[in-house]
Amino acid sequence: MTRTIDLIADVGEGYGPWGLGDDAELLPLLTSANIACGFHAGDPAVMESTVSRCRDLGVAVGAHPGFDDRRGFGRRTIEMTADEVRQDVLYQLGAISAFARAEQVPLEHVTPHGRLGNLSMTDRTYATGIVDAVEKFDPTLPIVTPPGVIVDIARARGLTVARLVLADRAYEPDGTLVSRRRPGAVLHDPEEILDRLAQLVETDTITAVDGTVIPADADSILLHGDTPGAVSLALRIRDTLRESGARIAPLREVLNP
Amino acid sequence: MTRTIDLIADVGEGYGPWGLGDDAELLPLLTSANIACGFHAGDPAVMESTVSRCRDLGVAVGAHPGFDDRRGFGRRTIEMTADEVRQDVLYQLGAISAFARAEQVPLEHVTPHGRLGNLSMTDRTYATGIVDAVEKFDPTLPIVTPPGVIVDIARARGLTVARLVLADRAYEPDGTLVSRRRPGAVLHDPEEILDRLAQLVETDTITAVDGTVIPADADSILLHGDTPGAVSLALRIRDTLRESGARIAPLREVLNP
Amino acid sequence: MTRTIDLIADVGEGYGPWGLGDDAELLPLLTSANIACGFHAGDPAVMESTVSRCRDLGVAVGAHPGFDDRRGFGRRTIEMTADEVRQDVLYQLGAISAFARAEQVPLEHVTPHGRLGNLSMTDRTYATGIVDAVEKFDPTLPIVTPPGVIVDIARARGLTVARLVLADRAYEPDGTLVSRRRPGAVLHDPEEILDRLAQLVETDTITAVDGTVIPADADSILLHGDTPGAVSLALRIRDTLRESGARIAPLREVLNP
Amino acid sequence: MTRTIDLIADVGEGYGPWGLGDDAELLPLLTSANIACGFHAGDPAVMESTVSRCRDLGVAVGAHPGFDDRRGFGRRTIEMTADEVRQDVLYQLGAISAFARAEQVPLEHVTPHGRLGNLSMTDRTYATGIVDAVEKFDPTLPIVTPPGVIVDIARARGLTVARLVLADRAYEPDGTLVSRRRPGAVLHDPEEILDRLAQLVETDTITAVDGTVIPADADSILLHGDTPGAVSLALRIRDTLRESGARIAPLREVLNP
Repeated sequence: MTRTIDLIADVGEGYGPWGLGDDAELLPLLTSANIACGFHAGDPAVMESTVSRCRDLGVAVGAHPGFDDRRGFGRRTIEMTADEVRQDVLYQLGAISAFARAEQVPLEHVTPHGRLGNLSMTDRTYATGIVDAVEKFDPTLPIVTPPGVIVDIARARGLTVARLVLADRAYEPDGTLVSRRRPGAVLHDPEEILDRLAQLVETDTITAVDGTVIPADADSILLHGDTPGAVSLALRIRDTLRESGARIAPLREVLNP
Repeated sequence: MTRTIDLIADVGEGYGPWGLGDDAELLPLLTSANIACGFHAGDPAVMESTVSRCRDLGVAVGAHPGFDDRRGFGRRTIEMTADEVRQDVLYQLGAISAFARAEQVPLEHVTPHGRLGNLSMTDRTYATGIVDAVEKFDPTLPIVTPPGVIVDIARARGLTVARLVLADRAYEPDGTLVSRRRPGAVLHDPEEILDRLAQLVETDTITAVDGTVIPADADSILLHGDTPGAVSLALRIRDTLRESGARIAPLREVLNP
Repeated sequence: MTRTIDLIADVGEGYGPWGLGDDAELLPLLTSANIACGFHAGDPAVMESTVSRCRDLGVAVGAHPGFDDRRGFGRRTIEMTADEVRQDVLYQLGAISAFARAEQVPLEHVTPHGRLGNLSMTDRTYATGIVDAVEKFDPTLPIVTPPGVIVDIARARGLTVARLVLADRAYEPDGTLVSRRRPGAVLHDPEEILDRLAQLVETDTITAVDGTVIPADADSILLHGDTPGAVSLALRIRDTLRESGARIAPLREVLNP
Repeated sequence: MTRTIDLIADVGEGYGPWGLGDDAELLPLLTSANIACGFHAGDPAVMESTVSRCRDLGVAVGAHPGFDDRRGFGRRTIEMTADEVRQDVLYQLGAISAFARAEQVPLEHVTPHGRLGNLSMTDRTYATGIVDAVEKFDPTLPIVTPPGVIVDIARARGLTVARLVLADRAYEPDGTLVSRRRPGAVLHDPEEILDRLAQLVETDTITAVDGTVIPADADSILLHGDTPGAVSLALRIRDTLRESGARIAPLREVLNP
């Protein structure tokens, strides 16, 4: 049976006069997009044009809610209650869904951004706030995330979770990401990235940083768009995935084969 | 036949640690609420609690989009293109609708706030931006506004418009509001306000600032909640409207009798 | 010899259309003011008018820098490096000093606000960032704070520190504040507050929450302006301090008797 | 006698994760810098590092205050009173001066940014607000600007004004800039730009868009750093100015020869 896999990246991360990443080049290579919702990045103009390009390209539109901290790009922990997280995520889900609605495309998933995403894998407060927001907004909306506390909470509520594998990040033997503060957390060698994605598709495993082979049933593979060479790497990743026997398709086809 | 009329006010205008107006006292006296959407005022916490109280009280939830200018409370003109207005209004419509969805109530109308609202009555750019946003978001959503350019544009598109009369503002003979810069623009005498509302309900007219009697087929009457005595005045307005033969009911009942 | 003591409070905490506290009533009772600098609260208009009133009343103008988080009013921890803290505090020191300069009064002290202040007592990162900013901006500017890490670092650099006692907060036996999360952290009984201030002035001690009597050589006493009854309590505090033999005077007179 | 002229550009226009222009390449070619103050662009981190680089390079530090509108990059008119303009400019002057003070360099000039600058040439309200701020903050601080209302008001108050010529903008016969809405407003041909700068230095004149030769006693020439080829054009401009007999030096040397 053919393996189906979704290619996803963070896009729409400009703000006002400022751009970030090369969305124009990257978007056509994706099947799904995590679109910033105006809190850590993005603004109404960027959101509208990004959703519009996704529609034109047939890329699935997803929400990428983050901390309300543009200066820190959502990468600094902000102490919040679960209520505050739920309120902020609801606001952002609504905002991006308005542009989806205006462009007559569905909102197909939510991927928590940056530090909010990291915390949701380890901290019940942040995880609960996000899950509460998704459950109240649309309990059929898949949450795209690496394993962690948020997955347990979402599954216990009957929500849909899609497993996200980060193409260029090293993994611990327990399946969590190696902290960015440790050396080797980010893979820079394209060959290494391509090899592990081939292994992922062919064997549903990842080799962790210590050599342990761990199961990893990926639904979506996250590319990074803001590094030099991101577009050419994305092209090679598409080739590798296909050669390894995967069909690249939006998350909805992965989840409903 | 009984006249039906909607009582509406601007609410949810706090931000973070700061409150504004006495929503707790005013909300139970209303049939519809214009809820700030986080641009000129309001934040996710305020929006959630305001929508929740509206649901508990049976008050219809409406969007109150404004300029992205908290310091100026949306009362300073910001030069914008129609595209920018559309994008900002879409964003705000989406944000408030997320809380309506979470609380399982419909979003029932949109009332442009402050200077954005004023400009939409006289300037095609702002009017077009707002109408474009409503049309794309939900073409059945009524726009609640005094007469002006926005009404002409919205009607030409087949959108629904509800006529808003401001309880405490003086009118020019052409049906527009007397500018706040002119003396007598705001009525402070409760008796005068009550008399004109009685006249409005009984004769579908308003007496303009120069004595001219002009037609005014009001669907919604706007109360101001941020002035001293606002709550006791609201109570008297309710009594006066009923004594004049009106039934006070949410806008949906006014528009679909 | 007469004891001299400074009476200080947080003021200028409005933003745009929103007010907070009763500065008009409280300011005349103070000898020093902690003025918000536009990050957790305050804006250029509020800052200008607050500095202007301080000048008129002879109240010493001080900076009250906080986290860049209006929605959270500077009360939520934001993860920052010492560099980021230094940069943000420098920015705020400069901003408030412009209004002092425009009103031809000196900037006389700095008191870190809210969570930034709390963290500076226990966390070297935040303490270092604040001390770095003060040292670079004006090494003669006194830092007004309860005891803690920031005091140690500031003294080691040769900066001036003034000891702040909070009138309505309970103390641990080690001289730190009882956490707000614990019952009894905030004193509500005016008599209790007045008694401890009399003891403070007469004996240079505070009775901690467990009954231990600890030394407390207060330079400034912080009043809270945002609670009901704050103004009448401030009047009684002034009387009590004088009856206990203290002279109420700006910090400069406390530090340079 | 040798003509002395200042080379100036807008720098420090990044924000949080976002950069703008190539300050690293452009700064060494300048004698003065207009540094964004956190309102239309810039943040405490960007401001600190930009001032620090200016100090290392011997580039004079200047303030570049703008409208409080990051999304619009200070290019959209915001309706403000002269009081509001004064307050906002004071705040920004203070903020940038803190970093100058921390780096032990003087703040040497102020150049209003974008639309605020444009309006200050034609509208008394904005011009008065800016002049009031400079007068209150430091009446010896030169205002660097093209001719206009702000020059008249500043001179009447005894403030110092430096005449700014924009290297790549066309001029009307009355010495004002050709509106960006008209064709030919911006010069793109490097040869044309170099020719007019040679003429400017050699004859103290500019040829206006209609062929009229008008007097133009330039103190500072503004380069644009955010266009492709900006750095190589800056290098050629330096050569041309020197070949035309000018000495390139900071504004202080132009004003006090």
